[in-house]
Amino acid sequence: MANPNPALSQIKALTFDVFGTVVDWRSSIIREGEALGRKLGIERDWAAFADAWRGLYQPSMSQVRNGERPWTKLDDLHRESLVTLLEDFEIPGLSKAAIDELNLAWHRLDPWPDSVEGLTLLREQFVLATLSNGNVALLVNMAKRAGLPWDAVLGAEVAGHYKPQPQAYAKTAAFLGLEPQECMMVAAHNDDLAAAAAQGLRTAFVSRPLEYGPGRTMDKGAEHDFDVIATSMVDLAHQIG
Amino acid sequence: MANPNPALSQIKALTFDVFGTVVDWRSSIIREGEALGRKLGIERDWAAFADAWRGLYQPSMSQVRNGERPWTKLDDLHRESLVTLLEDFEIPGLSKAAIDELNLAWHRLDPWPDSVEGLTLLREQFVLATLSNGNVALLVNMAKRAGLPWDAVLGAEVAGHYKPQPQAYAKTAAFLGLEPQECMMVAAHNDDLAAAAAQGLRTAFVSRPLEYGPGRTMDKGAEHDFDVIATSMVDLAHQIG
Repeated sequence: MANPNPALSQIKALTFDVFGTVVDWRSSIIREGEALGRKLGIERDWAAFADAWRGLYQPSMSQVRNGERPWTKLDDLHRESLVTLLEDFEIPGLSKAAIDELNLAWHRLDPWPDSVEGLTLLREQFVLATLSNGNVALLVNMAKRAGLPWDAVLGAEVAGHYKPQPQAYAKTAAFLGLEPQECMMVAAHNDDLAAAAAQGLRTAFVSRPLEYGPGRTMDKGAEHDFDVIATSMVDLAHQIG
Repeated sequence: MANPNPALSQIKALTFDVFGTVVDWRSSIIREGEALGRKLGIERDWAAFADAWRGLYQPSMSQVRNGERPWTKLDDLHRESLVTLLEDFEIPGLSKAAIDELNLAWHRLDPWPDSVEGLTLLREQFVLATLSNGNVALLVNMAKRAGLPWDAVLGAEVAGHYKPQPQAYAKTAAFLGLEPQECMMVAAHNDDLAAAAAQGLRTAFVSRPLEYGPGRTMDKGAEHDFDVIATSMVDLAHQIG
């Protein structure tokens, strides 16, 4: 059913959070961990490993956000976190090249089952751009592998600011040559959407109840007055298409 | 026939010049001019108009390159040039909105007949990124209209430097997470390829003898020892695929 919100008729581009919104990072990292375990002949709690790796995500970016360290792309932050985790989980003897390869697990995340179909529908009508904290190479490699049909790979790295810093949203709209209200941020996370709305972007909450596995507590539902609330990318396409 | 150059086996991404290499700016701007002429009921030499607009391209960027003015995206430089041209060609009475719309002619350039087929073939094997002086919005809108299958829209605007400044090439490779020698610059212009080669990128010259119309004098052929010399994007795909 078409959404009657008149503000939506202005929208020309959709800007997407990626981790958790478009791709299922947790199952994918568990899969990569399990493969590593088989290769090394070790058993570990790979779900805990995935959650711990993601758990270091926000702290690793905060040093860049607050200026304690210069711009550092997410691939490098992920790798630093991984080195810590390999010690914490007592995973022995990986070469530098093997650690580099494992770090690229974030380039190999699988989309949620509805993502490719939904994005393909949305792309008929809108410009689709990433607005992710992932670096360009990560997002390009992920899209190539998963078939995500982006028109542009933008976000933190080209803006030089990690979300939820305001420049990440404002500069992405500017790169697209659009006013903020001509862009709609699509995310499964309340704080991301609230930060986008503060910069004037429209907002679509897509619920991903399994992002953190069955024990999820955050972002179970929309906590603000977003323009659209959808249950999948295909649902989003039907609501705004 | 496969190219025997062993350096080519390292290549993971192709970075493309766009104006003249992928799209035929001259015929497209002439088409836009002719449509304007019909609308206004005036006759002008639209080929001369297209050549004059393009003629102001390098001078307009040089002020940004040498630091005389801060970063200014190509859409804005094109518009300044257009205002000058409207006087020179005595084209009367366009509103601000009409000038804005005419300026978007550069978002509506048509590809050369082989471009979409060639890029589609190349995309099966390589990451395809723009490395153009066009701004992101221009390139995204052009790709959407023309069906150009980019994996990433990069280049001057996100690098913050206009070609042939070295940062334009080096930063694009860095955004792709690649070493320069893992990237191949594809262009119809000797100076662009020479500047890319100076940063360590591989080079492919694609000849576009009609870029400047039948009176072309520049870039009639490859003037350096480039890695590949091709007659079309399809030929390039066959040589390196």
